[in-house]
Amino acid sequence: MTSEYEFDLVVIGSGPAGQHAAIQAAKLGKRVAMIEKHKGVGGVSVHLGTLPSKTFREAVISLKRATVIRSLEAAGADPIVLTMPMLIERVNSVIQNEQHLIRTNLLRNNVKVIRGFASFIDANTIAVDSPEGDRRLTTAFTLLATGTKPFIPDDCPNQSGDEDPIVLTSDNISLLKEIPRTMIVVGGGVIGIEYASFFAQLGTKVTLIERSDRPISFMDHETIDEMIHEMRIQDMIFRCGETVSKIACIDESPRRVVVELESGKRMTADVALICGGRQGCTDGLHLEDAGLEADKRGRIKVDENYRTTVPCIFAAGDLIGFPALAATSAAQGRIAACIMFDTPVAPMGDDYPYGIYAIPEMSSAGASEQKLTADKVPYEIGVARYSEIARGKIAETSNGFLKLIFHRETRVLLGVHIIGSNATELVHIGQAVLRLKGGLDFFLTNVFNYPTYGECYKVAAYNAYNNLLNNTMK
Amino acid sequence: MTSEYEFDLVVIGSGPAGQHAAIQAAKLGKRVAMIEKHKGVGGVSVHLGTLPSKTFREAVISLKRATVIRSLEAAGADPIVLTMPMLIERVNSVIQNEQHLIRTNLLRNNVKVIRGFASFIDANTIAVDSPEGDRRLTTAFTLLATGTKPFIPDDCPNQSGDEDPIVLTSDNISLLKEIPRTMIVVGGGVIGIEYASFFAQLGTKVTLIERSDRPISFMDHETIDEMIHEMRIQDMIFRCGETVSKIACIDESPRRVVVELESGKRMTADVALICGGRQGCTDGLHLEDAGLEADKRGRIKVDENYRTTVPCIFAAGDLIGFPALAATSAAQGRIAACIMFDTPVAPMGDDYPYGIYAIPEMSSAGASEQKLTADKVPYEIGVARYSEIARGKIAETSNGFLKLIFHRETRVLLGVHIIGSNATELVHIGQAVLRLKGGLDFFLTNVFNYPTYGECYKVAAYNAYNNLLNNTMK
Repeated sequence: MTSEYEFDLVVIGSGPAGQHAAIQAAKLGKRVAMIEKHKGVGGVSVHLGTLPSKTFREAVISLKRATVIRSLEAAGADPIVLTMPMLIERVNSVIQNEQHLIRTNLLRNNVKVIRGFASFIDANTIAVDSPEGDRRLTTAFTLLATGTKPFIPDDCPNQSGDEDPIVLTSDNISLLKEIPRTMIVVGGGVIGIEYASFFAQLGTKVTLIERSDRPISFMDHETIDEMIHEMRIQDMIFRCGETVSKIACIDESPRRVVVELESGKRMTADVALICGGRQGCTDGLHLEDAGLEADKRGRIKVDENYRTTVPCIFAAGDLIGFPALAATSAAQGRIAACIMFDTPVAPMGDDYPYGIYAIPEMSSAGASEQKLTADKVPYEIGVARYSEIARGKIAETSNGFLKLIFHRETRVLLGVHIIGSNATELVHIGQAVLRLKGGLDFFLTNVFNYPTYGECYKVAAYNAYNNLLNNTMK
Repeated sequence: MTSEYEFDLVVIGSGPAGQHAAIQAAKLGKRVAMIEKHKGVGGVSVHLGTLPSKTFREAVISLKRATVIRSLEAAGADPIVLTMPMLIERVNSVIQNEQHLIRTNLLRNNVKVIRGFASFIDANTIAVDSPEGDRRLTTAFTLLATGTKPFIPDDCPNQSGDEDPIVLTSDNISLLKEIPRTMIVVGGGVIGIEYASFFAQLGTKVTLIERSDRPISFMDHETIDEMIHEMRIQDMIFRCGETVSKIACIDESPRRVVVELESGKRMTADVALICGGRQGCTDGLHLEDAGLEADKRGRIKVDENYRTTVPCIFAAGDLIGFPALAATSAAQGRIAACIMFDTPVAPMGDDYPYGIYAIPEMSSAGASEQKLTADKVPYEIGVARYSEIARGKIAETSNGFLKLIFHRETRVLLGVHIIGSNATELVHIGQAVLRLKGGLDFFLTNVFNYPTYGECYKVAAYNAYNNLLNNTMK
């Protein structure tokens, strides 16, 4: 059946949501185009966000290992001095590779990748302003997957065009010429915490300012408490419940940033990293010409099928808000494409994992203690500390724990919360048990490889079992 | 109820089987003694086997990371030269810690730990020959968990008492004063392969001799083929289908080992590592006085409840043969204790994971392709290569793959086989799905953290899905 339109689907943006929607639609035999304004595909996830920060992190960790440091000492060598160029070079090589993988995958699936800036003419017509010339596409469906960019408050010096900025965001942090001695991180969300922890590990004296009572407040509190404890050991200062009243640059030599708080505190540092949330990239899309509008943070509202108020236009990924993870965005894109073309697809559900790639790493799936307490669900917990298992000692990283939450009566698993090495991998075991409705008995009887971090599940289950026994005694 | 015996359970041996049996019985309120002939608790697992080899491995890997090597180059420093004392020191510190954990755990559970050499007087009476004086214990039940030691053929020079041996086993490899330039490993089982791969990474030129057609023949062949490929890149030579006819030492300076094969080949090396299987430690136990006997490799026969032919005597762990893993031994010990004291317990089942901590690491759970083919079970496979996922690139280790095997009609998961970084951890996700009877749909719809190795499950599932589609086309 030939449609009246040139394409069945036009995807705007080439991040995880766009990629997975495009490939899913292509696999269903649809004619798909993808419009990307940047030179390389991949979106924020590959170029400025997820992947770079994780690579940065891995490079920091591998050089900070105790074995490496001790061996250098034993060999009489100087400790390794990490420099920004070393870190950035490593990050760039990973980006190159990932971009190549994505492009190959799109081409293999016959997705037409068009470089240019998209804007709506009407709900089924898109103009592309491109270096190779302007053009118009008509399409049955459109997926908005343009992602987000850092939100910079009006009263904050915006140096996003600068070559050598000292007020930075995660988007231009790679412009840092050297590792700063001091840094103020404004905003204790996931991105702020991740970068704060990397620089603290590199020896930067970091102060983190967060408006609410605690950083990353949607995560299980015990996990975040442990994270704060670990980061304080790296000399980080947490200023929670504080609001920034002024950020200014002092352009003397050496240049300094001054941050003032409403509580009257004043602090200076070599650089400030602004992580005060993100806003949707909708400027110039001419949403109004398609009959759409964004909220004041540039976000697009969708229903449970990722459909906007205009039936032929869908939106997915960071642009629609929480959870704004690469993995959930990919799932949203895929599901949206299935819905468009009437292909049966299961909803994403709530059992997706949340991964925070700070040092230490954290991950969780299912409910937090706070959520269950609010919902009045009776539960019991079991905790395994990494120091209790052999694997922790082998890796020289015995900080961390795994917490399991079981329903007190049915003993099914309700949540898993992990902080420490390998947390983002380890969580998938608990997530599988959550989704397949397993519980305490599964973990008590399961044989885990020895020595692995996986053993934490067994130790935590025994701990929960004992807690259940003790707390049901008359 | 006071029994006629001094103890309800006497455990002989303090490895994983003994520890878990003792603690399980103690938690059931039983009076438990553990007899250990060595100074420290933990058995071969902690002192000579599982834990040391894994620690050795981790130390090698952390220093061989490309980031570390490149950074040293960039800093103008010499490459790190690993020495045996550096490796051994690291191993010893992990052993100390694990021993301390085990001892604390036993004491906290009121297990009486007696140092000495045990021998049966009769099925319920055990003599202990101890540095602190001899004594006799009477007991309702006994668990034999004495483990194994390397099997050294009669015609092989046995240097197990030597201070500076050149014909070694995994038990005395820590006596090596320096990293050998050349090594012949006799036996391509798990232990032989693990140590061969470590020394190959350290720059030793390793030749491995294996009697059968392929090393570790019970593992899925594709996985082992990949392993051989990776190890050959490290200059390892595989001589499979070869039988050793003679091993001799040339005690000139420098000392050399000569190995001759029945095929007429002759090779020399700095050292030989004998990994020709293991034999049960039953010497001096006076099994015959309890009415028991061991087979010619010193192994004890048990039924599915780990009970020997003498109803009050059980055996578990390496002493009863395959699979002889720390984790399965622990499960066996725990189950045996439950059976003894009439406590309901689920059998271990077949879905335990197999972990091989070579470089590269391997792990599997469920059936191999060879097993399913022999059993005429129709299946389809899906493979994800580490090079296809972002996590592989971040870690600089993009070699490896994950293979899933699904039933062709029901699409339940039948097996998971992994080679590459994190394999022994990663397998637990597949193992959970195997045990909870999940299948292709689980993986297709699951959201995995990005970037993680866990994503391999999704990529492999899509690959299997496509294979299923293609192969069911008319």
